[in-house]
Amino acid sequence: MFFIIDILGTIAFAISGVLVALNKRMDAFGILIIAFVTAIGGGTLRDLLIGNTPVSWMLNMTYVYVVIGSTVIAIVLRSKIDYLRTHLFLFDTIGIGLYTLIGIDKGLGAGLHPIICIALGTMTACFGGVIRDILCNEIPVVFRKEIYATACIMGGVSYFLLRKLPIQEDYVFLGSGLIVIVLRLLAVRFKISLPSFYRDEVS
Amino acid sequence: MFFIIDILGTIAFAISGVLVALNKRMDAFGILIIAFVTAIGGGTLRDLLIGNTPVSWMLNMTYVYVVIGSTVIAIVLRSKIDYLRTHLFLFDTIGIGLYTLIGIDKGLGAGLHPIICIALGTMTACFGGVIRDILCNEIPVVFRKEIYATACIMGGVSYFLLRKLPIQEDYVFLGSGLIVIVLRLLAVRFKISLPSFYRDEVS
Amino acid sequence: MFFIIDILGTIAFAISGVLVALNKRMDAFGILIIAFVTAIGGGTLRDLLIGNTPVSWMLNMTYVYVVIGSTVIAIVLRSKIDYLRTHLFLFDTIGIGLYTLIGIDKGLGAGLHPIICIALGTMTACFGGVIRDILCNEIPVVFRKEIYATACIMGGVSYFLLRKLPIQEDYVFLGSGLIVIVLRLLAVRFKISLPSFYRDEVS
Repeated sequence: MFFIIDILGTIAFAISGVLVALNKRMDAFGILIIAFVTAIGGGTLRDLLIGNTPVSWMLNMTYVYVVIGSTVIAIVLRSKIDYLRTHLFLFDTIGIGLYTLIGIDKGLGAGLHPIICIALGTMTACFGGVIRDILCNEIPVVFRKEIYATACIMGGVSYFLLRKLPIQEDYVFLGSGLIVIVLRLLAVRFKISLPSFYRDEVS
Repeated sequence: MFFIIDILGTIAFAISGVLVALNKRMDAFGILIIAFVTAIGGGTLRDLLIGNTPVSWMLNMTYVYVVIGSTVIAIVLRSKIDYLRTHLFLFDTIGIGLYTLIGIDKGLGAGLHPIICIALGTMTACFGGVIRDILCNEIPVVFRKEIYATACIMGGVSYFLLRKLPIQEDYVFLGSGLIVIVLRLLAVRFKISLPSFYRDEVS
Repeated sequence: MFFIIDILGTIAFAISGVLVALNKRMDAFGILIIAFVTAIGGGTLRDLLIGNTPVSWMLNMTYVYVVIGSTVIAIVLRSKIDYLRTHLFLFDTIGIGLYTLIGIDKGLGAGLHPIICIALGTMTACFGGVIRDILCNEIPVVFRKEIYATACIMGGVSYFLLRKLPIQEDYVFLGSGLIVIVLRLLAVRFKISLPSFYRDEVS
């Protein structure tokens, strides 16, 4: 079950990378790298920061094959991919729910403070997109719009709150993952975003 | 004493990140990440390169709290922060003096060559700002203007020269830290900057 | 022999960094950092991902001296460097051939899958340039033009194919290194590049 969500999330992330790279007129190599970085960049940064090397994707070829396959299919079907937009959005949203929890789990495994674990979860879910945007010479979209990272942080906080209740570990995972997903869906549905505090008075 | 300088430096770095992020119209999450990266990015890169993981800030929550606190206060007081510009500049300058020495110390602890130690010191002091600028889609300001990194390099060189003299370790630290601070103050006061060798003849 | 190629490659990479930094009007510190990152960035990223820390260049001062020397010479001779363009192109091309093999070798040493080893080889050869372009606020040129990375990937694939034949290890290295070099030369000579699949129909 977790495995299927993980793969669907990886596919959604890789395809989102392909779409950005196509619009930047990159060649086939560039598209593959951007797809790869979007799908596994967050987990890679997390692994580097906690010293979990070689990083995860080097030891599990599944991700590599899934990203390469998704990239080839997305390139071939590029003119039809708009029809899948809603599905991809759902996969992506479910993906960040799971990735947040994977990041928290790795942080707990390394004996780190809950706040650091939540940061690692958010990083796992969001920083693939950050690295994608940097490689594409854009200010990361997650820093500017939508409650994307915030949903991950809220889900992470919920995880540590739910853990204090007399609930089975599985339900704690399920509950906090769902909170990420529901917050993200609500934010997109009702166009909720964080304040930006831009100072007009500044030169 | 060192601890207070470290905290003041962290505050100055975090606030400088907040100001850049505000001008880039980032949302609250983006502002927090930029503040964080500016304050702890240099030390994080240093820790990664020498294999010191989990990286320092994951093991010491003080930095996390200081950055979050500074960010909230800087956002709230954003219209008044210009009045603090001189104080922030001083904290920042004292901060890079200390950070240079912390980086050198970590390099020595890993048994590395003095040149590498000086590079690690400069990285600790300057690369938070470099990562901040990359995330904000700017060419890093430290590569273009002001004797900022150069002050750190000079302070690092002084450290290894002073160590050869019959001086107590504490005074070696103090002396080379002061050299960083004084050079930076002089460079800003007299608008000294490095040459840039731009070639007009190049197409 | 390998050592000389390695040094020539490092010189070519460092000078390519200097040229980009000069055109971006960076100061002396910026130029040095860009030269350094171009020359050793790919190997550094590889070392970080496989957990080989402190990263290679911190333990072998040769690279540091070669980069600093190349940078100083390139700045001094900047108005004459166009005459060396063909030599630099050759050094660079031979360099990526060797770097690809060094990356593969490190991957094998860490017991990683052949596909990961090829990725590490390509990373060693190409990602110094990627980091250089990010620091200079450009979309990495290797993602957009020329069969550069592709030559490295083909060379890497050849390495694993040739290894299955009853050929001495030395000749396997030589053969696959030559494939990288010849493919790159052919691609530049005949202006071959990868397709980019840019979608005009996308808004």
